[in-house]
Amino acid sequence: MNASPLLPLDVASATFLLLTAAMSATSALLLMSGHWLSPRWRLPVALSTLAPLIGVLHYAFSSLVWLRTHDMPVVFRYVDWMIAQPVQVLALYFLIQTIANTPTGLFWRLLIASVAMVLARYMGETDLLYPTLGFLIGLILWLYVLGEAYFGRMAEINAQSGSDPVRLGFFWMRLILTIGWALYPLAYLIVRLGNGADVGKLMVIYNLADLINQIAFVLAVLATAINDSAHSR
Amino acid sequence: MNASPLLPLDVASATFLLLTAAMSATSALLLMSGHWLSPRWRLPVALSTLAPLIGVLHYAFSSLVWLRTHDMPVVFRYVDWMIAQPVQVLALYFLIQTIANTPTGLFWRLLIASVAMVLARYMGETDLLYPTLGFLIGLILWLYVLGEAYFGRMAEINAQSGSDPVRLGFFWMRLILTIGWALYPLAYLIVRLGNGADVGKLMVIYNLADLINQIAFVLAVLATAINDSAHSR
Amino acid sequence: MNASPLLPLDVASATFLLLTAAMSATSALLLMSGHWLSPRWRLPVALSTLAPLIGVLHYAFSSLVWLRTHDMPVVFRYVDWMIAQPVQVLALYFLIQTIANTPTGLFWRLLIASVAMVLARYMGETDLLYPTLGFLIGLILWLYVLGEAYFGRMAEINAQSGSDPVRLGFFWMRLILTIGWALYPLAYLIVRLGNGADVGKLMVIYNLADLINQIAFVLAVLATAINDSAHSR
Amino acid sequence: MNASPLLPLDVASATFLLLTAAMSATSALLLMSGHWLSPRWRLPVALSTLAPLIGVLHYAFSSLVWLRTHDMPVVFRYVDWMIAQPVQVLALYFLIQTIANTPTGLFWRLLIASVAMVLARYMGETDLLYPTLGFLIGLILWLYVLGEAYFGRMAEINAQSGSDPVRLGFFWMRLILTIGWALYPLAYLIVRLGNGADVGKLMVIYNLADLINQIAFVLAVLATAINDSAHSR
Amino acid sequence: MNASPLLPLDVASATFLLLTAAMSATSALLLMSGHWLSPRWRLPVALSTLAPLIGVLHYAFSSLVWLRTHDMPVVFRYVDWMIAQPVQVLALYFLIQTIANTPTGLFWRLLIASVAMVLARYMGETDLLYPTLGFLIGLILWLYVLGEAYFGRMAEINAQSGSDPVRLGFFWMRLILTIGWALYPLAYLIVRLGNGADVGKLMVIYNLADLINQIAFVLAVLATAINDSAHSR
Repeated sequence: MNASPLLPLDVASATFLLLTAAMSATSALLLMSGHWLSPRWRLPVALSTLAPLIGVLHYAFSSLVWLRTHDMPVVFRYVDWMIAQPVQVLALYFLIQTIANTPTGLFWRLLIASVAMVLARYMGETDLLYPTLGFLIGLILWLYVLGEAYFGRMAEINAQSGSDPVRLGFFWMRLILTIGWALYPLAYLIVRLGNGADVGKLMVIYNLADLINQIAFVLAVLATAINDSAHSR
Repeated sequence: MNASPLLPLDVASATFLLLTAAMSATSALLLMSGHWLSPRWRLPVALSTLAPLIGVLHYAFSSLVWLRTHDMPVVFRYVDWMIAQPVQVLALYFLIQTIANTPTGLFWRLLIASVAMVLARYMGETDLLYPTLGFLIGLILWLYVLGEAYFGRMAEINAQSGSDPVRLGFFWMRLILTIGWALYPLAYLIVRLGNGADVGKLMVIYNLADLINQIAFVLAVLATAINDSAHSR
Repeated sequence: MNASPLLPLDVASATFLLLTAAMSATSALLLMSGHWLSPRWRLPVALSTLAPLIGVLHYAFSSLVWLRTHDMPVVFRYVDWMIAQPVQVLALYFLIQTIANTPTGLFWRLLIASVAMVLARYMGETDLLYPTLGFLIGLILWLYVLGEAYFGRMAEINAQSGSDPVRLGFFWMRLILTIGWALYPLAYLIVRLGNGADVGKLMVIYNLADLINQIAFVLAVLATAINDSAHSR
Repeated sequence: MNASPLLPLDVASATFLLLTAAMSATSALLLMSGHWLSPRWRLPVALSTLAPLIGVLHYAFSSLVWLRTHDMPVVFRYVDWMIAQPVQVLALYFLIQTIANTPTGLFWRLLIASVAMVLARYMGETDLLYPTLGFLIGLILWLYVLGEAYFGRMAEINAQSGSDPVRLGFFWMRLILTIGWALYPLAYLIVRLGNGADVGKLMVIYNLADLINQIAFVLAVLATAINDSAHSR
Repeated sequence: MNASPLLPLDVASATFLLLTAAMSATSALLLMSGHWLSPRWRLPVALSTLAPLIGVLHYAFSSLVWLRTHDMPVVFRYVDWMIAQPVQVLALYFLIQTIANTPTGLFWRLLIASVAMVLARYMGETDLLYPTLGFLIGLILWLYVLGEAYFGRMAEINAQSGSDPVRLGFFWMRLILTIGWALYPLAYLIVRLGNGADVGKLMVIYNLADLINQIAFVLAVLATAINDSAHSR
């Protein structure tokens, strides 16, 4: 039984281990880059670093649990998301603030909306709310955040930005937020409202979503920061 | 039995894991920010960093104990508070010192009062003192610290401060100290003087109190430091 | 049984422990050097650091597994390679970028080719693809990466480079990529297509390959960075 | 049995956990401060940092042992003291060297005296020497170190120092060395020459001594460094 | 049995724990010093840091094994030496390079000789070579390294050096290399060619040798760096 990590790894187990390694590598890269970015990029990059950093803790522990039991309740992931998803939204906000001052009210609205979004889904999943209600509230709050990014004050400031790398970075990050975050309600639908799914496949979807949101997203922030620093020099 | 961390998490367990993750993320953010704040902010921020840093150790260990036994004696938390609460008060003191020189005597009075406050509550809770006596001493010392913050030398210096971000920060930190610290005697009252309470709910109150005091408080220090650095530039 | 790490170590076990130690030492050296290299070298060196850093995690865990069971399925190594091998190729790309701007398209082609190369071999080894097909795809992608390094845009920019240390470094890194990476398909051939081999000897080959690719390679990057910094001063 | 850390903590156990937390917090604070002190203070502060840093290792391990067995042989502490006590003396020496050049001979005399002091006590405690002899040698070497601090070259240089913070710091550190170190021979007397003592109370004395010597002392070094940096600016 | 770490420690166990603590303290000191040394000293100091850093890993693991079983096969130490001893030789080489450019050929000769020296002794000890042959090859390679340090190019450059601290440092480091490294063949002789020895005493010799080579040596490098930085300012 103890030898189970030694069997040829199934794909789900491999993605768990891969995400542990990838989260570690991403965290290390962002921590190192913190020393040589131009000062105004330090806050967005520092915030972004938190997502893979918490991911390391989450996946190290989850891998252990998964390898031993080949099961991991989805509820457990909410601890990771409760930190990583608001941090992602705030990284976008502070990215825009490197161009121009953004209103403080927007900061609080985005923070509260993203925390509430994760909370509603968690409460739906643990039957503290009706599953459908939790799902709907989570969906609406996600659309609100997307709305701010596509049509709100952030989009305006971005449109007037003179920095090409920032405009490009904002485009990609917004896209990741749209596609990457869509995977969560999708999996949620399958789990809570559908008739269940193979737990291994579900894990692969969730791990893929985290790969996009907690790794690709922060690497986009880093690339934007590096390009903009080079551009403005 | 070993599989208990795999059950759908109850709310109390989830808050334990969430606080471990949140303490880690807060520590990481403050450690990173230490490199780019203006020099006079480094001491208050470094001091504040200690609160979530000790919190990481405390919650990592507590989560393990809680997940296994679904019990954790409150006495155990005093180790964490004995470091975190005096550190919070001193962070407030050194925040004020970024404006003007504060008397050294005040430093010692605040340090001793906050250490004695935690000690009195610990002794009350372990029957080294009469519970009511321990509670009252703790209460009086807490009120003394609040008095210094609202009407003492710190409030005076703050009132004369020319820096808006510092005044705003001081307002919020004092508020957190008032509300956040009020949760501890409240829970203490319930535990020692009332007829007991559901241990799970008690844990949620305590974890919420630590979230406010050890995370919201230090993020307020950090925000003040960032705003003031930007303001004075 | 628990005393097995105490037996005179066989050569395979010794190489596992040696690689754990060597990966740690290399990571530490690169992390320290990050503080004093000239700015344009920081990105290639930071990227290179990731290879031994992930190697530390991989070998620490693998050593434990190997010492206990004297077996370790090769599949397990793919988690390490999936990070380390693309990172190596990108380090080469960013090394060339310290001389002149390289096209972004090349970046994506190299990234995708190296990720796909590892993925194809993994799928071949776990029978998600026919072993021979997985092997052939991996081989072709490897040759493509070598082609870019020997005859592509990178080779051109390198040839026009005015910096002797960079030219020398590029020569060595390309050589390591050629020889070091050749060990993987070689061992793959033995495992999947041949009639198997003594697992101990196979491990020694793989560990040797990682020593060359994840340690010698990044030390070559570091040496190039140090020499070039000294040269251009 | 495994649940023993969950019982309401006795005072001795609480001091073990408290010292682990306090050593961690002190180490973190000194490590952070290393970045913003004026250059000539970096060596004394770096040396001082080693005392709580080794203390973290010592107390983390000791707490584990104590919580499980409610016993911990005093001999075990000598590993910690063998590093921490010479480091304390050398921190005092290098503090004086921030004022004026101190003779290299003094460095070696202090280093050897403090190492020999700990060694003699260790040998007395493990019956490698007669207990009384070990005690007496330890005592004489301690008095020699104090003599250097009160009447020797260090006291002279300090008296001529133009820096008030350094004079004040030296005064406090010498006092800590006098009172804090007196607790060790005192406890030694009780253990080896008296008729034994309650092991819990003995642990509290030793933990208190370490709190003074490994935490209060290095915080005094740090405070001196900060005050002197502010003073000389 | 699990309580064995609680028995009054015998001298051999105490040296294991002491070396773990001393390696940690030395690593921490060198890592901290890396921030404030003059740039040309950073490479030799960074290289030297690797020796105690690997020592921390080695002794933490060895202490655990020794405390449990009171046995540890010498072969196990070769993993540590394979990193630490070449690193020591290279630190000497780069120390000389802070004075004048040293030939690259010498670098490779020293690296290969020191790696081969450890390898030959390892092969002798594990019967991959005749013990006497392994011993002799190791001896000859050690003498070659000493020859380079006493009569070779390094000694010449050192003799012409204008920096007193470097000359003094080189003298001490060469001496440590001579005496400290002599302990290894000595112990080797006792183990392989003599009629065995008490394993406890043997461990004390080896631990003493590591204390001199991995700690005293690197502290000599650090002291040289600090003195030379002060001297040249």
